[in-house]
Amino acid sequence: MRISEFRVHPVAVADPPLRSSYGLHAPYALRTILVLKTTDGIEGIAEAHGGDNSLAALEAIRPHVLGRDPFDLSRLWATVQAETSGGDRSQTWLVPGENPRDSGTRAYAAVEAACLDIIGKAVGKPACDLLGGRARDAAPFSAYLFYKHAGGGGMGGDVREDEWGEALSPETIVAQCKRMVALYGFREIKLKGGVLEPELEIETMRALYREFGPSYPLRIDPNCAWSVETSLHVGRSLKEELGRGGYLEDPAAPLEAMAEVRRRLLAEGIGTPLASNVSVTAFHHVPQAWKLDAVQIVLSDPHYWGGIRAVQQLAALCDTLGAGVSMHSNNHLGVSLMIMAHACAASPAMRYACDTHYPWQTAQDEVVAGGRIPFQDGAVVIPDKPGLGVDLDWDQVARLEERYHKLPLRKRDDEAEMRKHVDPEWKRVLPRW
Amino acid sequence: MRISEFRVHPVAVADPPLRSSYGLHAPYALRTILVLKTTDGIEGIAEAHGGDNSLAALEAIRPHVLGRDPFDLSRLWATVQAETSGGDRSQTWLVPGENPRDSGTRAYAAVEAACLDIIGKAVGKPACDLLGGRARDAAPFSAYLFYKHAGGGGMGGDVREDEWGEALSPETIVAQCKRMVALYGFREIKLKGGVLEPELEIETMRALYREFGPSYPLRIDPNCAWSVETSLHVGRSLKEELGRGGYLEDPAAPLEAMAEVRRRLLAEGIGTPLASNVSVTAFHHVPQAWKLDAVQIVLSDPHYWGGIRAVQQLAALCDTLGAGVSMHSNNHLGVSLMIMAHACAASPAMRYACDTHYPWQTAQDEVVAGGRIPFQDGAVVIPDKPGLGVDLDWDQVARLEERYHKLPLRKRDDEAEMRKHVDPEWKRVLPRW
Repeated sequence: MRISEFRVHPVAVADPPLRSSYGLHAPYALRTILVLKTTDGIEGIAEAHGGDNSLAALEAIRPHVLGRDPFDLSRLWATVQAETSGGDRSQTWLVPGENPRDSGTRAYAAVEAACLDIIGKAVGKPACDLLGGRARDAAPFSAYLFYKHAGGGGMGGDVREDEWGEALSPETIVAQCKRMVALYGFREIKLKGGVLEPELEIETMRALYREFGPSYPLRIDPNCAWSVETSLHVGRSLKEELGRGGYLEDPAAPLEAMAEVRRRLLAEGIGTPLASNVSVTAFHHVPQAWKLDAVQIVLSDPHYWGGIRAVQQLAALCDTLGAGVSMHSNNHLGVSLMIMAHACAASPAMRYACDTHYPWQTAQDEVVAGGRIPFQDGAVVIPDKPGLGVDLDWDQVARLEERYHKLPLRKRDDEAEMRKHVDPEWKRVLPRW
Repeated sequence: MRISEFRVHPVAVADPPLRSSYGLHAPYALRTILVLKTTDGIEGIAEAHGGDNSLAALEAIRPHVLGRDPFDLSRLWATVQAETSGGDRSQTWLVPGENPRDSGTRAYAAVEAACLDIIGKAVGKPACDLLGGRARDAAPFSAYLFYKHAGGGGMGGDVREDEWGEALSPETIVAQCKRMVALYGFREIKLKGGVLEPELEIETMRALYREFGPSYPLRIDPNCAWSVETSLHVGRSLKEELGRGGYLEDPAAPLEAMAEVRRRLLAEGIGTPLASNVSVTAFHHVPQAWKLDAVQIVLSDPHYWGGIRAVQQLAALCDTLGAGVSMHSNNHLGVSLMIMAHACAASPAMRYACDTHYPWQTAQDEVVAGGRIPFQDGAVVIPDKPGLGVDLDWDQVARLEERYHKLPLRKRDDEAEMRKHVDPEWKRVLPRW
């Protein structure tokens, strides 16, 4: 069995005007669907980040993939590593998916997922069972709340209905959360912060805590928008709210600032763990983060950590070092959701619910055959089907690909969107507060 | 596909009178052959430590294995972990395979290997290719030299011819090494030390270096027989000999003594790395060892680290932490050799040749069909066959099992053997020098 076809389908997916410290989400999120086919006629699929950067990385890996046995991944990874430049992999300044330093890793991750889909179909086993066997039958996800403007995403004649409405206050975020929890059954809650004044974000977290109580662990992630002093203020103010199975994610940057926040919070008897998907984004970051005690929970992500096996390895590594492991999310469709779910199921130490942007996309733009993937009590149940367990709706892929080619968007640039729609002078400044 | 049969075959294998700081090898080494069979009639095999301790652990795991899908390993491991007591896993005092603290881990490892053999046969792939794909096509092993008395192993009418002769001096060890390298083509050399006066062992290493030159990395392993001062003396004396891709293995115990040896050698500009299979024998030992910089090379072993996937994980962990990884060996037959070879092939970071006792066993006592597994230039080539790539010679298994039942040996006790054959007063004392 050899890989004889390698096809990429860039797609554009309507995305609502979500806010973060990076700026504003564009009306469309870019993704790439990868399709591999073997000489036996087995098709494997995957989903990756979108835009020029990702497409170029997939083109670069293509010659190493064609003709390869889908089981032969370790040597493919060695080849990619040898060709990919080292250097800073931090996502402090670049949004995930736009860092050229990890584009090879991300292309490899997509190929690995598609190969696991192929192998699963060849063997008749779900992907997570090919990796040592699942640790759980369902992957829990968290309610991922965003401050947002009104609007459901899309442009021109393609604008979506806004099912969520504006949310730029504590009250509207609580309403957003209640709706999301009612629709999906999530049992952990994350707020993307770094958008409003810290006092307002603290108030938002307190309002969530009042509404949902201590049995819904809370996390807030301002993507490094705060100074050490502001991080400490938030940590103190939300000692109770974040202290019950929750965490404070990337309050500040760089790593040394995270370490200082941790040290000073601990000195005050506040044990709230710090999480990161910014200062720790590659294996070689882990030792230093651990030495400094800068990060107690590492956010994995099969897309940019190097695949599902890499997430397994990272989870085992964190477990060995006494750190927790959770999962980062970008905007994504159902194929990525399944990649993430299999990675979670195959990683025993993944004890935090994974992040997902899935509620922010809509049924209209799903590429998975049969439509949106359901959640049961906030979790994606691993389907009793081989491989990733989902197929593509080719009409949908064609439609979203056609849209991609018509649009001028070729990379994620939340700063430009922010200037276009909110504030013509806006710049990302770290720390902002 | 479910596991419907679980059979264990305890065997006794003639073993020559090898010496170490633990004492003297008995005339027979004990091993256990595990055979699993599925409802589809696929048979998977594995090899584990021998004797009562191992058999009891295999009996304990049996009910969790019968009826299980061979892919469903992660949850089996969780079950074993929950049932196995924690506590000290050090092998400072107990020889590997006689530590009750890791007997559950060892039983799991045997089951995992047999399951990978089954899965490989079901899928038509060598075991290493089921684990993310091989990093290399052959697993390099080292020449594992022992001070020894004359004698080829066995008792009574079953005594083996001594093809090696006595080796209790530098000259005879050099002769042993020349013979072993000529027979097997090994390219790295290890001496089991802690047997003679340190000056004699230093002289032995120097003689090996004179004979083989700097292109054959050298290691010496006294199994903690030395004090910190003696370790430093050896480290200084063999700065040149061990400094070229070799290492100093477990010169002293406990971990803090290793750390002191390292610190003081480094202060003198001697960078010889320290390796261990004594102070670091489980994942939870790694963080402390790393923090103290006590161990720069961890000796994996699929048998007691928890299987082939555990070795992969350990190798990745070491790589992340900037440590090296090598592989420990006990007396073993061809099935274990293949388990070790697949573990090496599937672990990209395994850059040191693995240890093996294989040259010390003989064709007469091999349980692998077709006889002894060949070495090419010191390496075991992964066979182009599914699973582990070897089958059992059932007549041989029956013969060695019959012998096991006739013998009184039920555990490895090198101290008792030493008293019986060498010195009636002998006791293991650490440090001895």
